Amino acid sequence: MAFRFEIIKKDSFSKARLGRIETNHGPFNTPAFLPVGTQGSVKSLTPEELVEIGVEAILGNTYHLYLRPGHEIIGRLGGLHAFTHWERPILTDSGGFQIFSLGSLQKVSEEGVAFQSHLDGSSHFLTPEKVMEIQRAMGTDIAMVLDECVPYPSPYEYVKASAEQTGRWAKRCLQVKREQDPALFAIVQGGVHRDLREKCAQTLVEMGFQGYAIGGLSVGEPKSMMLDVLEWTTSLLPENTPRYLMGVGAPEDMIHAVILGVDFFDCVLPTRNARNGTLFTSSGKISIKQAQYAEDPRPVDETCACYTCRHYSRAYLRHLYLSKEILSSRLNTIHNLYYYINLFRKMKEAIQKSRLLDFYKSHASPHGLEPELPVHLQSN
Amino acid sequence: MAFRFEIIKKDSFSKARLGRIETNHGPFNTPAFLPVGTQGSVKSLTPEELVEIGVEAILGNTYHLYLRPGHEIIGRLGGLHAFTHWERPILTDSGGFQIFSLGSLQKVSEEGVAFQSHLDGSSHFLTPEKVMEIQRAMGTDIAMVLDECVPYPSPYEYVKASAEQTGRWAKRCLQVKREQDPALFAIVQGGVHRDLREKCAQTLVEMGFQGYAIGGLSVGEPKSMMLDVLEWTTSLLPENTPRYLMGVGAPEDMIHAVILGVDFFDCVLPTRNARNGTLFTSSGKISIKQAQYAEDPRPVDETCACYTCRHYSRAYLRHLYLSKEILSSRLNTIHNLYYYINLFRKMKEAIQKSRLLDFYKSHASPHGLEPELPVHLQSN
Repeated sequence: MAFRFEIIKKDSFSKARLGRIETNHGPFNTPAFLPVGTQGSVKSLTPEELVEIGVEAILGNTYHLYLRPGHEIIGRLGGLHAFTHWERPILTDSGGFQIFSLGSLQKVSEEGVAFQSHLDGSSHFLTPEKVMEIQRAMGTDIAMVLDECVPYPSPYEYVKASAEQTGRWAKRCLQVKREQDPALFAIVQGGVHRDLREKCAQTLVEMGFQGYAIGGLSVGEPKSMMLDVLEWTTSLLPENTPRYLMGVGAPEDMIHAVILGVDFFDCVLPTRNARNGTLFTSSGKISIKQAQYAEDPRPVDETCACYTCRHYSRAYLRHLYLSKEILSSRLNTIHNLYYYINLFRKMKEAIQKSRLLDFYKSHASPHGLEPELPVHLQSN
Repeated sequence: MAFRFEIIKKDSFSKARLGRIETNHGPFNTPAFLPVGTQGSVKSLTPEELVEIGVEAILGNTYHLYLRPGHEIIGRLGGLHAFTHWERPILTDSGGFQIFSLGSLQKVSEEGVAFQSHLDGSSHFLTPEKVMEIQRAMGTDIAMVLDECVPYPSPYEYVKASAEQTGRWAKRCLQVKREQDPALFAIVQGGVHRDLREKCAQTLVEMGFQGYAIGGLSVGEPKSMMLDVLEWTTSLLPENTPRYLMGVGAPEDMIHAVILGVDFFDCVLPTRNARNGTLFTSSGKISIKQAQYAEDPRPVDETCACYTCRHYSRAYLRHLYLSKEILSSRLNTIHNLYYYINLFRKMKEAIQKSRLLDFYKSHASPHGLEPELPVHLQSN
């Protein structure tokens, strides 16, 4: 399968870079945010709406799609792109994260992981080879290796054993990878321990993957630890392959991570928040259900050009939310995703103009955030 | 307010007619189907999607909008059109139907109707004058008089008293109507009793409204009775004003009603069915959740040109439905409304070509329906 990563520009003042990832379903430009299409749809939106917002690639959840409708059915219907009518790049995770967060009675062995479905309690056993088969059948563009994501905090020995297991599973994924298979990314684990992260990264890099993800972050550890882990880990990953930070996150964390050399992200935050009535604006988050918006004729964000802000008042969005109207989820999701995609557009512009650190500071201030940069960057 | 009804063509073989209703928010062509925008949105869809489907006018529920967010707020925000971003004609009902079906502790007096909100139990009192004020504040294009919709079956004396009450309330609505108010339609009640329907229709026609609705049907009475009532009632309504059959309904009933001289309809059937996974097709209704569609690559209806049928398989729609994805409601609603609007497009063409009775028969056959026409039309 066609897969290529090109670095267009490196930032002079940080590890950030502008890049472009080419896949069989077209390119996406980095830094990038991939909305999550859990069960074959980015909740509430059509592909056309995602394109209008400016989304270039999305994520699908292997765990969910494997359980329902099943990868074989998706394969027989022409793959995930044809099934869902999303024609641009798709990355699928390996299912590991959901097995541990949603499944029950998980049991990890050298061979793989056994678990029971959260849907009907049925028993399943996923191996590295099986998750390759599933992602192959779905015709994804970027596949992830099977990994175990450990909670925070966990005992050092457990984190160590788990990271080593993830390394051996990654190798088995690579061994069964075929010429026409999706691009394959490994996942660096190792919790908040520098030696484990470094060891895991080195092991995986030696095997040679088409990209590297940083997993097991944003699972409860303090933010400063997350940034430390990111800094140690990205330093060990090859320059010429994409770096993917899984499940992160908040706008300020993503800007920070881009500064530390991360190329793309996925997170349910903007879409889940939208359905809960929490909206991102240029001056902070707002909760649209609040009484103060009952007669507010203004759009969510007067500086925003999204469909929702062009046509609807806060008062109407509050009304839809309180009335539990389906359109509430749609309009809120359009706005939040537009906010995210626009943030990445501005980050790309900032890197282009070598002004990313300024952008970080200017983003942090109106949100009342401490614009703390890693020590070695503060002098810039 | 601008309001005009023009009859473009009368059918030679039935009481059907092609018409055009002009309002301050543009025209809509009859026979017409108005989707229901209960709480300020046609559930799950944007105005742009309604326009793409071909919807020319929608209905809003006064009961719901009065209770939440309140007509005064809607008024201060520029009216229902500005609030909801729907720029074409809106008809609002008077709230009567919902007071009796959703409210509790209803108490009808000469003055009006007291009830408790289904939302929070708060007490309210609506009078004919108040429903005029509410609809005026919302800036609707067509307002309805306050009426009482009696269940079927009900004692003759109760139906009689109620129809007379509806007549007196209609008069009070007319008395407070101002020059710039929405067009005002009266509602013929009288249950399934010919003398009561005739008396109510005559009383209202003598008062002189801009249009007449037929209410209190499709409330449990046998279908043959409904058609009898329709035939008696439409005969007594003036040729040159529009006739509106409230809350009906099923495609075959609407075709039948058009043959009997009805000009437009509203009903939650296509939208509610859509959310429950029941889809209309040219060969009958299907329930998308059925196992037989699990791998069905075909669109819902191979003869349908809607967005849903152009891009998605039955298998995907089944998957979305079973996964409780919001997109399921959207795609199903788009399809069902398109089916309805397309049915009306075909009815208009048939009237234009003087082939409506043939169209009725050809529609009924594949659906296994008895194409029974009223006796006096069967000879045609």
